[in-house]
Amino acid sequence: MTLTMRGVWCDGQSAALRVDLPRPEPGPGEVLLRVRLAGICDTDLQLAQGYMGFRGVVGHEFVGELPDGRRATAEINNACHVCPACAAGMPGHCPKRSVLGILNHDGALADFVVVPERNLHAIPPALDDREAVFVEPLAAAFQMLEQAQPGSGTRLAVLGDGKLGQLCARVARTSGASVTLIGKHADKLALAGEGVATRLIDQSADLRRGFDVVIDATGSKTGLPTALGLVRPRGTIVLKTTVAGPYEIDLAPIVIDEIRVLGSRCGPFARAIEALVRREVLVLPLIQSEFALDDADAAFRAAAAPGARKILVRP
Amino acid sequence: MTLTMRGVWCDGQSAALRVDLPRPEPGPGEVLLRVRLAGICDTDLQLAQGYMGFRGVVGHEFVGELPDGRRATAEINNACHVCPACAAGMPGHCPKRSVLGILNHDGALADFVVVPERNLHAIPPALDDREAVFVEPLAAAFQMLEQAQPGSGTRLAVLGDGKLGQLCARVARTSGASVTLIGKHADKLALAGEGVATRLIDQSADLRRGFDVVIDATGSKTGLPTALGLVRPRGTIVLKTTVAGPYEIDLAPIVIDEIRVLGSRCGPFARAIEALVRREVLVLPLIQSEFALDDADAAFRAAAAPGARKILVRP
Repeated sequence: MTLTMRGVWCDGQSAALRVDLPRPEPGPGEVLLRVRLAGICDTDLQLAQGYMGFRGVVGHEFVGELPDGRRATAEINNACHVCPACAAGMPGHCPKRSVLGILNHDGALADFVVVPERNLHAIPPALDDREAVFVEPLAAAFQMLEQAQPGSGTRLAVLGDGKLGQLCARVARTSGASVTLIGKHADKLALAGEGVATRLIDQSADLRRGFDVVIDATGSKTGLPTALGLVRPRGTIVLKTTVAGPYEIDLAPIVIDEIRVLGSRCGPFARAIEALVRREVLVLPLIQSEFALDDADAAFRAAAAPGARKILVRP
Repeated sequence: MTLTMRGVWCDGQSAALRVDLPRPEPGPGEVLLRVRLAGICDTDLQLAQGYMGFRGVVGHEFVGELPDGRRATAEINNACHVCPACAAGMPGHCPKRSVLGILNHDGALADFVVVPERNLHAIPPALDDREAVFVEPLAAAFQMLEQAQPGSGTRLAVLGDGKLGQLCARVARTSGASVTLIGKHADKLALAGEGVATRLIDQSADLRRGFDVVIDATGSKTGLPTALGLVRPRGTIVLKTTVAGPYEIDLAPIVIDEIRVLGSRCGPFARAIEALVRREVLVLPLIQSEFALDDADAAFRAAAAPGARKILVRP
């Protein structure tokens, strides 16, 4: 008899709760976790609209419970650990990788999830589930610190007051940089963490060329052109979000102003967990509400509403 | 009585020889040089088609003679040396700068040219005028070494077999990198310097993701997308050429593959002169022909012909 479970299933065109999914079984080197709490990311919303043609259970921000009761989360890139990219220390760029809830691997918006054991990170007792569920996106935010290396005295702008922009602004502050969060929504800018200056994009004309580092967390076609206007000559732009598909843009300023553009994706889980434990980064104000897994369809609608903060789903 | 001279004058829409131009007079801190030899750059061809709306004498690759008979060339960015960008050691990015033969300052395709004295670089006796005229574009090629820092073992591709691509390939070799010049023209690839591998772009499918560093010297909309296919995850793309105006491009691979994109413009003249003196970089094979200044219009037509190598103009 096959065990079943509930989960948010994406058929490549839309996503919806199903109650008849087969419970996943761990293969060699894998472990089964009972999901305690999961978050809905903008990538999940894009997948639910057909992005990447993904078929499977969505969800890659989660905290779960191992069979022995310990809590854990997991890095999302499942690499082969054999190819040249893996051998070069870049398992996140393994060409054969699957990605939890995104590419060829069922995700965590479900009762159960299977992940490679080596991808696990234990969640310390000091962290609430509602904090632990932020480890993955927070790690992604920390990645830009390793790449751009801002420090005391660095003038850094984060473009985009959404969920990732909020995390990036908080993470940037831990470097000692002078941080300005620039966005479109006064109510979301008001969530910016302690010590973060804020500015409405429509009122930022005087900031032109005023930043050493600009983080684009807009997920929008306007992000990079805006960043090119805000960064100083020989400054750095970090692209944290993608725009799906081609769009029209003038890239000549990158050459003329000798800008450094850094693509940035997944990041260090251990550093994210440490930052949460030390309360360097506070994430609870970013939570909007929590839904039961049975109400996952309503949770997705809430997450897709303009101005939504983080929506959590509890199986 | 105003002294006159010959020069290639751009009226913002086209460029042509004029014989009635006023001879420039040096202002404070400036010097007058009699031009001995000048080169035609692709930027000059673009200016002659209305790029940047430049009005004035074109030409920024040159070797001239000071009143005392010494030979010299000059850096092309004329900075204020007072503003924050200048104070930060970036006179090439001074927002008030003029640029020789490109922006608000008459250039060197003429009998005489005026430049700031502090921009001068003496040309050593060991260099022929026909070598010295390459100092400016060669310096621009060296700039990418300072930015991307390739070294022994670095797999580096130069995209574009035109004049700048040829210089970039030669300069890249001085770093010890393993260099492949990729272009569209077998006859131009044949000019690649010693130790540089070559490949026709149509026959480079097997090179996908095979390079640590890719230099885009194509000046074409196809350059960056091609570079994104050739570079490895977490590799570096150096943009040496601009594409005028907006164009449609998919930038998601920069984020997904965490690519570093470096805009690169003017470079170190002293290093370029040193490389020519030491014969680290050989440039004479890149010269196609030399025209008298009286034949400048024919020189521009020759420079604009497909596959043209460097065209020189001697007043």
